[in-house]
Amino acid sequence: MAWKTIEYQNGKVTLIDQTRLPGEIKFVTTSDYRVIAEAIRKLRVRGAPAIGIAAAFGVVLGAMEYQEASDLPKEIEKVIAELAGTRPTAVNLFWALNRQKAVLKSAGSKSNVELIALFEAEAKVIAAEDELINRRIGENGAALLKDGMSILTHCNAGALATGAYGTALAAIRVAVEQGKQISVFADETRPLLQGARLTVWELMQEQIPVTLITDNMAAFVMSLGKVQAVIVGADRITANGDVANKIGTYGVAVLAKEHKIPFYVAAPLSTIDLSLKTGAEIPIEERSAEEVTSFGGVTVAPAGVKVYNPAFDVTPAKYVTAIISEYGVAKGDWEKTFKEWRKRSEK
Amino acid sequence: MAWKTIEYQNGKVTLIDQTRLPGEIKFVTTSDYRVIAEAIRKLRVRGAPAIGIAAAFGVVLGAMEYQEASDLPKEIEKVIAELAGTRPTAVNLFWALNRQKAVLKSAGSKSNVELIALFEAEAKVIAAEDELINRRIGENGAALLKDGMSILTHCNAGALATGAYGTALAAIRVAVEQGKQISVFADETRPLLQGARLTVWELMQEQIPVTLITDNMAAFVMSLGKVQAVIVGADRITANGDVANKIGTYGVAVLAKEHKIPFYVAAPLSTIDLSLKTGAEIPIEERSAEEVTSFGGVTVAPAGVKVYNPAFDVTPAKYVTAIISEYGVAKGDWEKTFKEWRKRSEK
Repeated sequence: MAWKTIEYQNGKVTLIDQTRLPGEIKFVTTSDYRVIAEAIRKLRVRGAPAIGIAAAFGVVLGAMEYQEASDLPKEIEKVIAELAGTRPTAVNLFWALNRQKAVLKSAGSKSNVELIALFEAEAKVIAAEDELINRRIGENGAALLKDGMSILTHCNAGALATGAYGTALAAIRVAVEQGKQISVFADETRPLLQGARLTVWELMQEQIPVTLITDNMAAFVMSLGKVQAVIVGADRITANGDVANKIGTYGVAVLAKEHKIPFYVAAPLSTIDLSLKTGAEIPIEERSAEEVTSFGGVTVAPAGVKVYNPAFDVTPAKYVTAIISEYGVAKGDWEKTFKEWRKRSEK
Repeated sequence: MAWKTIEYQNGKVTLIDQTRLPGEIKFVTTSDYRVIAEAIRKLRVRGAPAIGIAAAFGVVLGAMEYQEASDLPKEIEKVIAELAGTRPTAVNLFWALNRQKAVLKSAGSKSNVELIALFEAEAKVIAAEDELINRRIGENGAALLKDGMSILTHCNAGALATGAYGTALAAIRVAVEQGKQISVFADETRPLLQGARLTVWELMQEQIPVTLITDNMAAFVMSLGKVQAVIVGADRITANGDVANKIGTYGVAVLAKEHKIPFYVAAPLSTIDLSLKTGAEIPIEERSAEEVTSFGGVTVAPAGVKVYNPAFDVTPAKYVTAIISEYGVAKGDWEKTFKEWRKRSEK
């Protein structure tokens, strides 16, 4: 790929500003952790893995800024607190910051220079691990995609949301790398249009053929025989194989089943939450009416209209053909397979 | 209802400007047929029946303008030609203008004043017939809706598109008149947002409870048990019961079937085209990429992206629970029932 969502080099982080896409390709380069915090808060960087990686490097920038401090650990705690306050519901943010906290705790009486090197090493590991996970998901997913297939995807489970290739889009990328002819239908994904703005942009950057449709065209496109597989990402997967993902995913899954098209979910093991038995236990975030009634500042619905705006929906496992993680491909027997993957991950 | 899409009084036509909705409720009042032609061309008036009625009154205005002419029929032919050129694919436009042409032919040696009176009478009949058809569709449809039901609709099959109550929305209006508690989920209906802009506006005007959702939320809303019936309009129905309607209708029909929710189509007999055996014979109009790549005038997708933008889709009859016309409710046995209706209409 010609670009990365987040890159780190010699004390500087470079982020692509996703709020400007697709109108403008603008990179933010900074050595100030406050700029990273602001980028997370303002959704310039979005997608769970990408947020975690950005925060981990934010800690590195903070440590470098205070490299002359008499009490560096104390300063770092403040930096971490500031980064943690940016998106209070982002699980990966805390996960990444906790890894840097663990570095801090185990640092003992190391010098400031040594401590900075440890933070830097840990952030690089977090990014590299995510890249490796993406790559493996891509390879496992690509094995399901045949030459000449046309794939429908929903929302953006792509490189912009992760450290490298994405999840659903990783499978497509790797299949294309393998020389398969793959084309993509991208649902625009209302209300926030991540499909139109981000997925289409990513694929066009790499000359992977992509056709944009509105969400309500997916059914007709399937009925015309134009789609051979669906691949989406996931926000959370429960022990029984139910999948929470961007609103609209469930409808696509029902349509895929009706048209006998396989419905694949690509997600890292960290997405699988074995503490939840079924999707019914997943709380559904409801977002503001304005996301539905307006776009880009233009209002399209009457003032005062009642709106229902769930951010996610739950796709019951019976609609899922396979779940692809960095550990393999599960096709049913969900809980057993997830537990095997978890075991392997703990080795 | 407190307003009508088209009203005629004493030589003046008043139209609601649908291009300004919902931001502004602006009525255009004119005695100039050119203003009517422009309103049809610019989609200020839209919906097949509404266009026909507007054109019929346009002929009346033209006749009044030339009431002193030595050869009124010749002038009227020019007026009709101008009105016919506004939307070359609108079947109802030609149907209504042909009815005025028939008046012209049968007029013999009538005076200008008498001829104008005949055009006016014919236009009023066209409008009144449409109102009656709407009313009957409403009554036939309302019989299927029970107290307390929540109904999902797609696009705008409402009063704005017709002479009076609409088709799908007529059923809802009449059910509410009958004292039933009915609430509505309105799909926003991308790309042109007729649901968000028009259906929501109509229902709010009449205090019928309505909740706006994006098209891709319909599946989740159904899975939560929030919808007890779907009603949509139709652009064309073939002899076997296949239904062409606004893009997205087919997907809603599949979802309704999966959730065991009845899927009703409300449309006048004139929509049923017995010359076509199945929906496969219906040509699907593809519209411009700009409708999809922009939202309310704001560009949301990368420049140059490939877009598929079918204006309609075809719902196979197997997904249709019932078709409601002014002649009754068909539940299967489509062609036989349609032919019976046609026979009754010819009496």
